[in-house]
Formats: sequence, structure tokens, C-alpha cells
Amino acid sequence: MALPKELAIGIDVGGTTTKFGIVNRQGEILQQDRIPTNTHENVDDFIDDLYKKLTPMMKKAGGKTRFAGIGMGAPNGNFYSGTIEYAPNLKWKGIIPIADLMHKKFKLQTRLTNDANAAAMGEYMYGCAKGIKHFITITLGTGVGSGIMIDGKILLGHDGFAGELGHTVIRPGGRLHKGTGMKGSLEAYASATGVRETAIEYLTEYPETESLLRNYSINELTSETVYECAMQGDTIANRIFEFTGQILGESLSNFIMFSSPEAIVLFGGLTKAGNLLLNPTRKHMEENLLPIFKNKVKLLFSELKEADAAILGASALVWDMD
Amino acid sequence: MALPKELAIGIDVGGTTTKFGIVNRQGEILQQDRIPTNTHENVDDFIDDLYKKLTPMMKKAGGKTRFAGIGMGAPNGNFYSGTIEYAPNLKWKGIIPIADLMHKKFKLQTRLTNDANAAAMGEYMYGCAKGIKHFITITLGTGVGSGIMIDGKILLGHDGFAGELGHTVIRPGGRLHKGTGMKGSLEAYASATGVRETAIEYLTEYPETESLLRNYSINELTSETVYECAMQGDTIANRIFEFTGQILGESLSNFIMFSSPEAIVLFGGLTKAGNLLLNPTRKHMEENLLPIFKNKVKLLFSELKEADAAILGASALVWDMD
Repeated sequence: MALPKELAIGIDVGGTTTKFGIVNRQGEILQQDRIPTNTHENVDDFIDDLYKKLTPMMKKAGGKTRFAGIGMGAPNGNFYSGTIEYAPNLKWKGIIPIADLMHKKFKLQTRLTNDANAAAMGEYMYGCAKGIKHFITITLGTGVGSGIMIDGKILLGHDGFAGELGHTVIRPGGRLHKGTGMKGSLEAYASATGVRETAIEYLTEYPETESLLRNYSINELTSETVYECAMQGDTIANRIFEFTGQILGESLSNFIMFSSPEAIVLFGGLTKAGNLLLNPTRKHMEENLLPIFKNKVKLLFSELKEADAAILGASALVWDMD
Repeated sequence: MALPKELAIGIDVGGTTTKFGIVNRQGEILQQDRIPTNTHENVDDFIDDLYKKLTPMMKKAGGKTRFAGIGMGAPNGNFYSGTIEYAPNLKWKGIIPIADLMHKKFKLQTRLTNDANAAAMGEYMYGCAKGIKHFITITLGTGVGSGIMIDGKILLGHDGFAGELGHTVIRPGGRLHKGTGMKGSLEAYASATGVRETAIEYLTEYPETESLLRNYSINELTSETVYECAMQGDTIANRIFEFTGQILGESLSNFIMFSSPEAIVLFGGLTKAGNLLLNPTRKHMEENLLPIFKNKVKLLFSELKEADAAILGASALVWDMD
């Protein structure tokens, strides 16, 4: 008698690194590994490399027959078409039919979605949003990603591109986002890049104010150094998190009045700032809500490790195939 | 043999007037009438009055047995609970279990939703969004209402209050919205009230600029007078529509990046301005979209009469009961 197909491969294609793992239905990552993403000039080499790495892992886990399929999260990954479309951070240009190519190579059903949706799926199946049918995940990393869960389903929109909340504008005419050319988008402020820019702005605008941040060279100014200085009571560093939280909180209140979620799950590097970020975010979020929404929405930090959430979320796409 | 239950009652509870009609499955309003809403100090009197008006209408249509149910749209109407909750424009305060009260009086199943969701439902079943599974309806009237359709279902959120897009903030720290105390919300600008306020602001800010609008007393300044002057080539009046369209367009681009709809349906009094409003709205909407969303979203004007859409949409809730 054949063993049940109880394993999935979860793959998180990132701008620099691709992480992948073998995951069971309970959300345990049994084995994992990684390869660089952008050393492969074309996608076929990338898939060959993945195949070389995954073949022995699958063998060790009992062989291909135990696998129900492959789930992938990737920047600009489209669930409907299974293609990666014009991803600005990847070397492979144009439209890449990656789900199809993976299927041909691995002979396993493959589902694709964008990386932020995969993370939301991971929270829903195995993380702090377990059992919550309406929530929004916001990833505060180098950029700002988002995944929106509506009634237990990832919101895809008519073409699969829904949920680009990092690019919604919260300060019209505000700070230039170099990647998109847009002005005043959430990502221009509430990302690691944005925190660094706010730091440079504040240090330039208030040249008289003493700050520990002045001990760092401009290249050393990062969201981490701002955090360390804030924890030591530095006024400017604290103001930077106040401002970042204000922008994020105002954006969240707009999102809440759109889809009325039960929770918002924050995620990614910036959340290491903990209450320094959470307190102003909550304050400004609540201040900008209509009374019917006030004091209802849970603001949560993800409890999954970042790499794990992406692999788990991608693998969860497989169980949805049933 | 009994005749099939092929009729529904659709009721649109507005701040001043309640409109209702008898509607068939094809979306034809066979009879309709209206009563004032706020002359009734308590909701029981209001329901009694509705019953008196509707009883002969139902008799004329073949009797109660031909009716599948009642659908109602009302401000702050909650689909899940069947209650109207703290509606600022209605006299009945607190939480009103109106679906239950209607059911007891009429002995017909009753479904409730908010007025903007009912209008979206009307567009989906019988209007210009027929067959479009992902769209957003924006009502530009005295205020700004919205209904969001996701995959053929009205977006309700975890508590039934999703879709308050008129209260999302597009100019943080901007114009005060007297009803909510919020600053810079879409409704503060892109409503009939907002257009009037913009007119007063512009006439005060540019006292030297000649304008036909100066021939009107401050009480006569309305979105209609601004429209009439704009049509005669008045510079300030045209600028007012430019600005209103800019605010609306920027908001729409944020909404599009949330749910990636196929279409946006505009609706309500302000849409009488036609291209004066549509052109700047489309321009600013497109300018603020990521490339993956550009030149894809249809911007439509509703073709249903306003009163009809609300009655039709409310009645459509009944067919969803099957």
C-alpha cells in the first residue's frame, strides 16, 4: 500500500536568496536549504539548481510519491497564471511561466503566489492568525509587502495582483520612492529603507540637536542603528520611530475601513523595534478610525520566523489543491 | 397550484426619505412609493407606516404568497446581525433590530445591508457591473458611500462593516469633516458638501480672480452652481472640479492597489458633472498606480437611476437567500 501524499515542498523566491523546505501537513519543516536567486542568468539554470538540491532531500523524506505538490512564493508571482510578471528585483525579465517549468522538471503539481500572500497563508495555517478569517499581513522589511485574507481566502482581485498596500499613497506629494517614482507611498516611510531616510532627514533638519546617531557614518545609518540609539533614550531616534508608527498607523486605519479585518499581523525586520514601533502605530491607527471600528482590531506581531513563514505559506498552497 | 415566489420587496432607507418597490427577478420595479424617514420618532411607527403602504401594493401584485422576502438597505445596516447600528443620520438611536421587526410585522424573511452595499448589489445584478465579479461602487452624494464586490460577493469584513471608503484619509491633517471630526477624508472633498467647501475656499483664497461664482450668495453655492459655472468656462469653477477629481483619483488608485478590481462604478449627484469630473479623476488615478495596474481598470458611470439602484440592490438580497 502506498504511503499517503502527506508532504509538500515550499519555496520562497526572494530577491537575493531562495529558501525551500520539505513540510508536512502539520506545518513542520522537516528539512530546509537555500540557494542564491540572482546568480542564475536564466530561469532554467535556477530550476536545475533547485532540482539538484531537492532531489536528495525528497529521497531522504521517502521519495517523490509521498509529495502532494510544490508551492512557491515569489515577487510578482501570479496565482491565476502561475507566472512571475516583470519582477523588478529578479534577473529574469518579462513574464516567466515558472509554475509550468517547475511542473515539467519535478513532475509535481506546482502552485505560485506572490511572496507576501504566501506569508499571509503561513500565518493563517500555522501562525498567529490561525483560524482568523479576516486579517491583513504587513511585512515591514526592505520594502513593505502585504497579504489580505478575506473570509479565509487570499484576496487576489480580478487579475491576481490585489494587495499592494505598500504602494498606497499616504502622504500625497511626499517622499519620492526611488523604485516606483511614486511620491508619499507607505513603503517610502515604513520600511527599513524609509527609516534610514527619515534618520538622514531629521539629522539634516535639526543640525543643532545632539544625537547618538551622529556617531555613525551615513552608510552605517540603518533601521538597526536607529533602534539601538532609541533604546538608549536618544530623542531623534525615538522621534523617527514615532513618525514611522504614525505613517503606518494612518495607513492601517485606511486599510481597516476598506476590509474590516479582525486582526493585522506585522512582520519583518522593523518589528524587532517592538513597542517603539507598536505604540505610535496603534495610537495613530485608533485616532483615524470611525467609531464603529475603534478598539476592535487586534494588532499582532508574527510569531513565525520570517524564513519559516514564507516556506510554510508557500507549502500551504499545496493543501489548497485538494 | 401556487404561483412561484417570484417577487421581492426592496426598501432603501435614506436619511430623509425611504423608497420602496416591488421588484421581480428580472429587476423590473413593478410598483414603487416613498415615505419620509425621520418624521417617525420610533422605529415601530415607521414599520407600521411601511406596512400600511405596502399591503395594498402586495395585494395588487398577487398577494403575499408570491413574495420571497424583503431586502433592505439602510445607513449602518449590518448584514450579519440585521441591525442598524448607531446611524448618525437617523432618529432611532443605538442598535435597532430592524430585520427582526420587519419579519415579525410582514411575516416575510428580511435581509438587511448598508445602503452603499445595496447599491453595489443593484449594479451587479441589473446595472453596468452586470457579470463583473470584482468592482467597487463609489456614491458621490451629500457624502461618499462605497460598496466593494470581491469575487461576486459584497465585502462585509469580520463584523459586517467593511467598505467605508468615504472615510479613508487622503490628505492627512487636511480639511475637517464636521460629521466625524476626522481630517482629510475623501468625503470631506469628493462629495457635494466637499465641492461647496472647495468653492468657498477658492473664492476666499483668490479674491482677485473674477468668477461667475461670485454672483451667488454663499447659501446658493452648491455643487450644481459650480457645475453650471464650469460649463460656462469659469476658471475657478473648473479648478474646483480639477481638484475634486484629483482627490478622488488619488483615492481610487489606493483602492485599486488594495483589491485590484476590474471596474469602478461612480454614482450619485456629483456624477452629473460628467467629463468635468471624470477626466481629472482618471488622470490622477492612472498617475498613482503601479505599472501592473495601469490602463486596466474601467471607470464607469452608473446607468441606473439612483433611487432605482438602491431599491433594486436591496431587493437582490432576497434572491441571495435561496
